[in-house]
Amino acid sequence: MRSPQSELPQITAELVERLRQRRPRVHCITNAVAQTFTANVLLALGAVPSMTISPKEVPSFIRRADALLVNLGMFDAERQKASLAAIAAVNKLRKPWVLDPVFIDRSPPRAALARRLVAKRPAALRLNEQEFRALGGKVADAVASARYAAKTRTVVGLTGERDLVSDGVRLVAIANGDPMMAKVTAMGCAGSAVVAAFLAVESDAWLATAAALIAFGVAGEVAAERSHGPGSFSVEIVDALYALDRATLVGKAKVA
Amino acid sequence: MRSPQSELPQITAELVERLRQRRPRVHCITNAVAQTFTANVLLALGAVPSMTISPKEVPSFIRRADALLVNLGMFDAERQKASLAAIAAVNKLRKPWVLDPVFIDRSPPRAALARRLVAKRPAALRLNEQEFRALGGKVADAVASARYAAKTRTVVGLTGERDLVSDGVRLVAIANGDPMMAKVTAMGCAGSAVVAAFLAVESDAWLATAAALIAFGVAGEVAAERSHGPGSFSVEIVDALYALDRATLVGKAKVA
Amino acid sequence: MRSPQSELPQITAELVERLRQRRPRVHCITNAVAQTFTANVLLALGAVPSMTISPKEVPSFIRRADALLVNLGMFDAERQKASLAAIAAVNKLRKPWVLDPVFIDRSPPRAALARRLVAKRPAALRLNEQEFRALGGKVADAVASARYAAKTRTVVGLTGERDLVSDGVRLVAIANGDPMMAKVTAMGCAGSAVVAAFLAVESDAWLATAAALIAFGVAGEVAAERSHGPGSFSVEIVDALYALDRATLVGKAKVA
Repeated sequence: MRSPQSELPQITAELVERLRQRRPRVHCITNAVAQTFTANVLLALGAVPSMTISPKEVPSFIRRADALLVNLGMFDAERQKASLAAIAAVNKLRKPWVLDPVFIDRSPPRAALARRLVAKRPAALRLNEQEFRALGGKVADAVASARYAAKTRTVVGLTGERDLVSDGVRLVAIANGDPMMAKVTAMGCAGSAVVAAFLAVESDAWLATAAALIAFGVAGEVAAERSHGPGSFSVEIVDALYALDRATLVGKAKVA
Repeated sequence: MRSPQSELPQITAELVERLRQRRPRVHCITNAVAQTFTANVLLALGAVPSMTISPKEVPSFIRRADALLVNLGMFDAERQKASLAAIAAVNKLRKPWVLDPVFIDRSPPRAALARRLVAKRPAALRLNEQEFRALGGKVADAVASARYAAKTRTVVGLTGERDLVSDGVRLVAIANGDPMMAKVTAMGCAGSAVVAAFLAVESDAWLATAAALIAFGVAGEVAAERSHGPGSFSVEIVDALYALDRATLVGKAKVA
Repeated sequence: MRSPQSELPQITAELVERLRQRRPRVHCITNAVAQTFTANVLLALGAVPSMTISPKEVPSFIRRADALLVNLGMFDAERQKASLAAIAAVNKLRKPWVLDPVFIDRSPPRAALARRLVAKRPAALRLNEQEFRALGGKVADAVASARYAAKTRTVVGLTGERDLVSDGVRLVAIANGDPMMAKVTAMGCAGSAVVAAFLAVESDAWLATAAALIAFGVAGEVAAERSHGPGSFSVEIVDALYALDRATLVGKAKVA
C-alpha cells in the first residue's frame, strides 16, 4: 500500500489538468501590490481571477466564483468590509476559501482580525513561520501546525524552507521551491491564490493545499533554472506554471 | 477606388508615427490590477500616461490631457466620482474619451453605471461580447454592434476572436491578435488605453479605434512568436509596441 | 588628496554590500502604479519593503522600519493621512525619510502638500526639473538646487539627463542612466525608494543619495545593453540591481 504522501505528485498532476479543463473562477480580495501578479499566476494555471473589493459587488462575484482568497496584506476599511461580506457569502454557499494573514507579525490589529477570520473556518490557512507565531503559537513546527489545524478544523499550509501541510491528522513536508521566491514581492500571496484555485477543483482540502504548494514550488524550481535574477524569475515562474506537465511534476516533487 | 478598410494598415502605420511624434497625454481612470501594465503600454507606444483618481486633481490633469480612458474594472466610490468629474471636464473641453465597461456582465450595479456613461457620449466604447450583451443586446455580432453605434453615436469596438469596429455606417473586422492575449490580466484594459491614445492624434474615431486594435493585435502576434508562455508574452508585447514599424503593420494586418 | 566625488564609485559599491548584509526595512507610502515595481526593486537590492497605507498600522510598521519613502503620486485622503502619520513617527524616532513629489507640476493642491512636507525635513528630496520648478524655483540647475538644499536643510537629488545631488555645500553631477528609464512607468518612484534604502545604511544623506542614484543609473545602463524594448528593460533592471558588483559600479560610474 502506498502512503498518501507518495501519491501526491501524481495527484498534483491530475489536479493541474483538472484546473485547465474546468477553468474555475477564483475571487481574490488581496492587497494592491499582489493583485496583478496574482491574477497572472491564476490565468497561467488556467483559472479565471476576479479582484473587485467593492462591498456592493462582492456578493455578485462570489455567486459566480468557485473559490475565494482573503489576503490581509492591506488593512483598509473597504477591504475589511469586503472580506467579511465575501466570507459570509462563500460560507453560505459552502464554497472553499483560503486565508493568507500577511504580515500579522508586524501589526497587532491585523493579527486580531486574522484570529476572528480563522474562526469563520477557512478551508485552508497559508502563512509563514512568523505569521503562524503571531496567531499565538510559540513554535512553528510540524507538531504545532498539526495541533492548530486540529483545533481550528482548518488545513494549515505553513510555508518556509520546507512547506508543512496538515489537517490535524495527515501531514506532509514539501521540499520544493527556490530561495529566489523570497526575492519577488507577492510570491507568497500568489501561492495562496494557487491554493484557492486547487480548492476549487478538489474537495479534500489537505490534498488540494499540498498539491498547490508542490505545483508552485516545482514551477519556482523550473523558473530558477531559466532566469538570472528576480526580474526574469518573476517572468519565468508564470511561464513555468503555464507549461507544468506531469513529467516535470513527478520528476521534481519532493514530499515526505 | 480603394475601400476604407484596405487603407487601414497604412493609416495605422501613420498614426503610430504620429503618436511617437506628438507624445499625447492620456489620462486613465482604471482599475488597480491594470494601472501599471496600462501605463507601460502607453509609454511604449510613445504616449504619456497619468493615472490619478483623486476627484480633486482630475480636472487639473484633464486640462493637460489629450484623451481620457474610463475603465470600470473597479467600482469604488472614489473612482466613480473621479470618472464623472473627468467625463464632465473632458466633454466640456471637447476632448475624446473611451469607455471600457469591464465585467459589467458580472455585476448589475456596474452595468447600470455603464449605461449612464454611454449616454455621456464617449468617442469609443471598447468591450467584449459578454459585456456588450450586458448593455442590453441579445446578440453580439456585426449588425447589433453597428446598430448600437448608430443609436448611441459612439464608435463600438467589440473585441473577440475577430474585432468588429463600427460607427453605425462603416464597419471593419480585424482578425489580428493571439489567444495568449487572454492569458494575461488587463490586456483588454490596456487595449482600451491604446484606443484612447489613437483618439488623441486622430479625430475620426472610427479610424482611430480600428487602427488602435490593429496595432495592438499585430503587437500581440509579434509577442507570441517571441515568447513561450504568458509571463514572457506580457514582456514581449510591450517591446513589440515600442518597435512597431510600417512593414510589420502592413505585412501582418488582417482587415476585411 | 581625492575629492569626495572621486570616491563616490567605491563608496557606492560599499553601500551596496552593506545593504545586502543588513537587509534594512524600507516602508513605502507610494502610489498604486509604483507599488509592485518598487517592492521588487528594493528586494533585488537586498532591502525589505513594506507598503501599507493604513493610518492605523503605519506607526507599527515605522517602528520596525529603517527608512521611509513618501511618494505623492496618489493624492487620496487615506495616503495623505498615512503620510503625515508616518512622517511624525519617523521624525520622532530620528530615522531618515525621502520625499518624492511626483507630478506636483500638474496639480496645485499636490504642490501645496509637497511644500508642507519639505518643511518637515526629509533627509532627501528626489524630483525632476518640472517638479523642482513647481516648488517655487525659476530655474532647475546646480546653483538653484544647492540653494534650495541649503535653505531647506535637505539633500536635493534633482534627476534628469544628469542627476545633481547637493546638500547645499557638496555637489555632484552623475551622468549615469539610460533614456529607456523614461519609458517604464514608476522608474523615478523606484529610484526614490533606492535612495531611502541607501539612507537606511548610511547616515551621511548626501553620500547615500548620490550613491543610490549612481547604483540605479548603472543598473539602468546594464539593463539597456541586455534588453530590446521597455518591457524587457524593466525586467533586466531588476536583475541588474540584484547582480550589481564593485567592478561594474566602479567601471561605469560617471561622476563629476
